[in-house]
Amino acid sequence: MSLLVVGSVAFDAIKTPYGKTDKILGGAATYFSLAASFFTDVRVVGVVGDDFTAKEEQVFHARKIDISGITREKGKSFFWSGEYGENVNEAKTLDTQLGVFGNFNPQIPDKFKDSGYLFLANIDPMLQLNVRRQLNGARFVAGDTMNYWINGYRSQLNEVLKNVDALLINDTEAKMLAQDPSLARAAHKVLAMGPQALVIKHGEYGATVFFREGAFGIGRHPFRAPTLPIEVVADPTGAGDSFAGGFMGYIASQNQITRDVFKRAMFYGGVLGSFAVEAFGTERLQRLTREQIDERYKVFRELTHIE
Amino acid sequence: MSLLVVGSVAFDAIKTPYGKTDKILGGAATYFSLAASFFTDVRVVGVVGDDFTAKEEQVFHARKIDISGITREKGKSFFWSGEYGENVNEAKTLDTQLGVFGNFNPQIPDKFKDSGYLFLANIDPMLQLNVRRQLNGARFVAGDTMNYWINGYRSQLNEVLKNVDALLINDTEAKMLAQDPSLARAAHKVLAMGPQALVIKHGEYGATVFFREGAFGIGRHPFRAPTLPIEVVADPTGAGDSFAGGFMGYIASQNQITRDVFKRAMFYGGVLGSFAVEAFGTERLQRLTREQIDERYKVFRELTHIE
Repeated sequence: MSLLVVGSVAFDAIKTPYGKTDKILGGAATYFSLAASFFTDVRVVGVVGDDFTAKEEQVFHARKIDISGITREKGKSFFWSGEYGENVNEAKTLDTQLGVFGNFNPQIPDKFKDSGYLFLANIDPMLQLNVRRQLNGARFVAGDTMNYWINGYRSQLNEVLKNVDALLINDTEAKMLAQDPSLARAAHKVLAMGPQALVIKHGEYGATVFFREGAFGIGRHPFRAPTLPIEVVADPTGAGDSFAGGFMGYIASQNQITRDVFKRAMFYGGVLGSFAVEAFGTERLQRLTREQIDERYKVFRELTHIE
Repeated sequence: MSLLVVGSVAFDAIKTPYGKTDKILGGAATYFSLAASFFTDVRVVGVVGDDFTAKEEQVFHARKIDISGITREKGKSFFWSGEYGENVNEAKTLDTQLGVFGNFNPQIPDKFKDSGYLFLANIDPMLQLNVRRQLNGARFVAGDTMNYWINGYRSQLNEVLKNVDALLINDTEAKMLAQDPSLARAAHKVLAMGPQALVIKHGEYGATVFFREGAFGIGRHPFRAPTLPIEVVADPTGAGDSFAGGFMGYIASQNQITRDVFKRAMFYGGVLGSFAVEAFGTERLQRLTREQIDERYKVFRELTHIE
């Protein structure tokens, strides 16, 4: 069933210990849709400026991603420039230019209203809510957020949490959202705010999904997926969005939401995240194949399974 | 086959957000031997002072641990006082008194020389080497160390690394030892220093074992074991030593060292570490049962296994 993502389509300039780039294609919805496209039909709603050309369009077309929901405005696309040091979990922002993204007011085209799965990438919670209401019939809705919204837009974010089935955030965000330094306790506090499932991404240590008691008829035992110990993290940008894309893409490709589907989705999320960081920007995702994905999925199994 | 541990038997005074203790039984060899005692015969070589009484002896006797290798000297046992904040991975040392441990010069009693398995807990690398030489016939030798020895006793530590089959350390220690901020690269650099296997403990994220190419005929694919997301970490003291005890105890209980044995040992290590932190000091290990261990082992499987 079709998967709709709403979020940023942008340009990034990135510096890491392994190199640097000029302005290259980036944005949460870009990484997400590329990762998800290996599993299901993906549709994007976003906004770009004049600098988004046929070259960038081709990246989406090559993966058969429907970008007819990306509107074009006069001006520049969202631009982010950042630098990573040896700690790949922390980016230092050098420059942010909202451009046309500053007035982003996402509207779901009628032809996308039959999307069964929705991912609300990290944008203003008011916009997330607005999109959520436009797609009331979705079977499964997940969202992301960040410290900026957690700290300054708590009441709006609380509304979002009541209207998503799953939230995907990292350790720091979970602890901040729950105002609790214990990850396990924070998880249960966030679940009490609304979502049935909470996926906490641990960076190089993998990710854990926590469930509310009785969620999806699954029970509340958590499940933990690994990631590969990677020697060269060329560019960590987009790892979390690629995780979300693999996770949601796999779920959307299945007919039901079971514990087994969730487990495999967690593994596929980890696999897509691990590929994304191997090269700069979306480069590795662009030349990825389903065969490579399934091969690494087996490696992840071998990495964690006793027999 | 019998497992010998050489290390500290001590007293700790601990403060955590969940409470505080007066002087209670602690020390690496104590946690290690209690954890290992659920799997195999355990022998301890250490030194204590006058303050080590029949009450402390009874903790070991109750688990059938042979403490006839613990010598008694005039003076006080090693004492450590520390405090943990909300970050359970960092202890603030309030007081350290070496006492009789300052002159520790471990001698393996003749009757212990048939021990097939040896664990060199975190002590002066010169003493670790000295013990290693006294037990040349051991089938499998593992060791621990810490930042103090890594920073100041590099050449002695290098000799230890050439004379152990496995090293068990945490993330920070691995990166420090390899002088490389990438965990995966650090792992391979440490393996190049000598050990066949390197177990890196990730605290609340579990642990990963890395192998040298061809080690034990196992191949070099790593294996990652989880730990349980725990809501109340009453006292993190001894978690790493309990991990090591579960890990080595299980290996010593098996007839051969295979990849499957390593995998299960990693799981048992995680299980014992997860129990240790549930109560202050060795309290939880003292009232632990093999049935509870095997039950949690199943939970760890469920937490990580797809099908």
